[in-house]
Amino acid sequence: MTENRARLTPEYRRCPISGRWVIVAPLRATRPMVLDHASPHARNGNHAEECPFCEGHEDQTPGELFALRSSESQANQPGWQLRVCPNKYPAVLPFPGELQADRSGYELFQSLPGHGVHELIIECPRHEANPIGLSEAEFVALLQVYRHRLLALSNDPRNRYVSIFKNVGAEAGASLAHLHSQVVATPFVPEAVNIELLNGEAHFARTGRCLFCDLIEAERSAKVRVILETTNFIAICPYAPRFGYEVWLFPLVHENRYEQLSNELCEELARLMKRLLQAVDFRLGRPAYNWHLHTAPVRSESRPDFHWHIELTPRTSRPAGFEWGSGCYITTVPPERAAAELRLTIAEQTPVEG
Amino acid sequence: MTENRARLTPEYRRCPISGRWVIVAPLRATRPMVLDHASPHARNGNHAEECPFCEGHEDQTPGELFALRSSESQANQPGWQLRVCPNKYPAVLPFPGELQADRSGYELFQSLPGHGVHELIIECPRHEANPIGLSEAEFVALLQVYRHRLLALSNDPRNRYVSIFKNVGAEAGASLAHLHSQVVATPFVPEAVNIELLNGEAHFARTGRCLFCDLIEAERSAKVRVILETTNFIAICPYAPRFGYEVWLFPLVHENRYEQLSNELCEELARLMKRLLQAVDFRLGRPAYNWHLHTAPVRSESRPDFHWHIELTPRTSRPAGFEWGSGCYITTVPPERAAAELRLTIAEQTPVEG
Repeated sequence: MTENRARLTPEYRRCPISGRWVIVAPLRATRPMVLDHASPHARNGNHAEECPFCEGHEDQTPGELFALRSSESQANQPGWQLRVCPNKYPAVLPFPGELQADRSGYELFQSLPGHGVHELIIECPRHEANPIGLSEAEFVALLQVYRHRLLALSNDPRNRYVSIFKNVGAEAGASLAHLHSQVVATPFVPEAVNIELLNGEAHFARTGRCLFCDLIEAERSAKVRVILETTNFIAICPYAPRFGYEVWLFPLVHENRYEQLSNELCEELARLMKRLLQAVDFRLGRPAYNWHLHTAPVRSESRPDFHWHIELTPRTSRPAGFEWGSGCYITTVPPERAAAELRLTIAEQTPVEG
Repeated sequence: MTENRARLTPEYRRCPISGRWVIVAPLRATRPMVLDHASPHARNGNHAEECPFCEGHEDQTPGELFALRSSESQANQPGWQLRVCPNKYPAVLPFPGELQADRSGYELFQSLPGHGVHELIIECPRHEANPIGLSEAEFVALLQVYRHRLLALSNDPRNRYVSIFKNVGAEAGASLAHLHSQVVATPFVPEAVNIELLNGEAHFARTGRCLFCDLIEAERSAKVRVILETTNFIAICPYAPRFGYEVWLFPLVHENRYEQLSNELCEELARLMKRLLQAVDFRLGRPAYNWHLHTAPVRSESRPDFHWHIELTPRTSRPAGFEWGSGCYITTVPPERAAAELRLTIAEQTPVEG
């Protein structure tokens, strides 16, 4: 029994050859996989009867941590607009007690208990599989709840970083169709974010300016990779993307923590994201995609060298032996072409205002 | 016309935020994609009529660079066992003249012409889609030709690294079923290999020993992640894998360049790989997978801190928003369990000798 539990406890492990940290999470193997290649977005259309995330099925998720719901409704009962629950099949688990101190000695096989938090944000009560099916108010609420979870999880000093991301479609790793985002808090800053922090730091040391602000300025001058600009945000196709039609979203004003986003900016960002996702769906025939928020580690002081952003990675190609072996991605779609196509699609879809 | 050609020329680009190098290769978009989810390994079984790699269709590939063929046969005619051709839809292209010198100044957007070599190794004349369908002699020949291409491409001083890899199945990025490996020579050492070189260097500086030799020794002592050991090779499930049932193969004797492999060791390695792939196919129901050779940069001096190996990555899960956003992989299969299962499968499949 004890041995069985030990075997199921998640664990962080570092690969001594590549330096990569991975999470070994046997519990997660038992999660239901409803989406597959035959029905990448939703099996049997609106198959709400078996969906654990639909309104009325609140008993199929662990008890809610937070919800937007009518004042006369009760926790874990119908009457909600959005729910946050612990993930039933978590990649990491809250452990009692203090965080284990970093090992000081050098060891070939480095491991840490898989301490952390893994939450689900169920984005709407009905069986909706496509983010553009969210109403504007629902999209705004989702972006506000991202802020809320970052702030809530900041309170535990054991959480050093909070990853927020979303998988849409089977090919992008989604196992259930009903719209949900995921939140993973870890006791370390993940490698991909850490590299961005270091690159930002190096650029600042060299130039005295924010790498991301400089990038935005360069893209606004070059114009070729900008898809859309609103009062406070810009959407671009990045210069060196991993995937064709990859899109990055930046706030125009320098800010390193997403938690600082005002309600007004959440509204503007939600409108921008809906327009963009409509164009991506139209242009690529409803592709699978992920989005992932890159923000400063929680409780960071304000810093001049990092700038939060959202990366949207449509699954337009499959990384193959070259990518896995070399770490270098091949893309067949120049970002300049992708941006021009998305720009045109948005122009055609958006009614002229005023 | 000139502008059109310029737009199709491949280009290396560095992402200023992540530091990743990517290859923008528009020409590769035109390649035929025969495999898909409905027929991940081969459409219509042995659909040889339309296969550009089958014997008799030599005119459908660019002229061969090298072949194993009967002495009475002619180049680009039937009568061959294995052919090496330029990739018709290359990710990189040979350019005339000297390699462009590295830029010395700091630029936000770094780019280099996509100079390099992209070859195909067609592994057998018949329409075979599964590597375990190769005869032992064919498998040995393939591993010898890997050596041959490394040596041949070493002669061009512009090639700094030669990546050799293989995609099996649509999910692993294969576009055609007929067995083939790919060879990509680049004017730089790709990031993933460079990190391994640096980690090997750091371990050597710290301990005076080879990181990979130490790892092999530790795995032989621990026993829990070893799948199979032969006279000169060991197959293990790595301590911190990206994918469930990931397998790494090492030569037991320290050697950093695959090119040094003797014919006898090619034979032993081919037998080991066939046994291993049979077990993987049986255990996982013929999964898609890649293998990729990690070897020292071409023309390297013998070095004490790097050790060539082959990584086999079955596509047992799909990297999702967490992986793309954090660089940290979640695996639900502990490598200790994967190794035990593959060990058992091999024991059951292999007749007792002697």
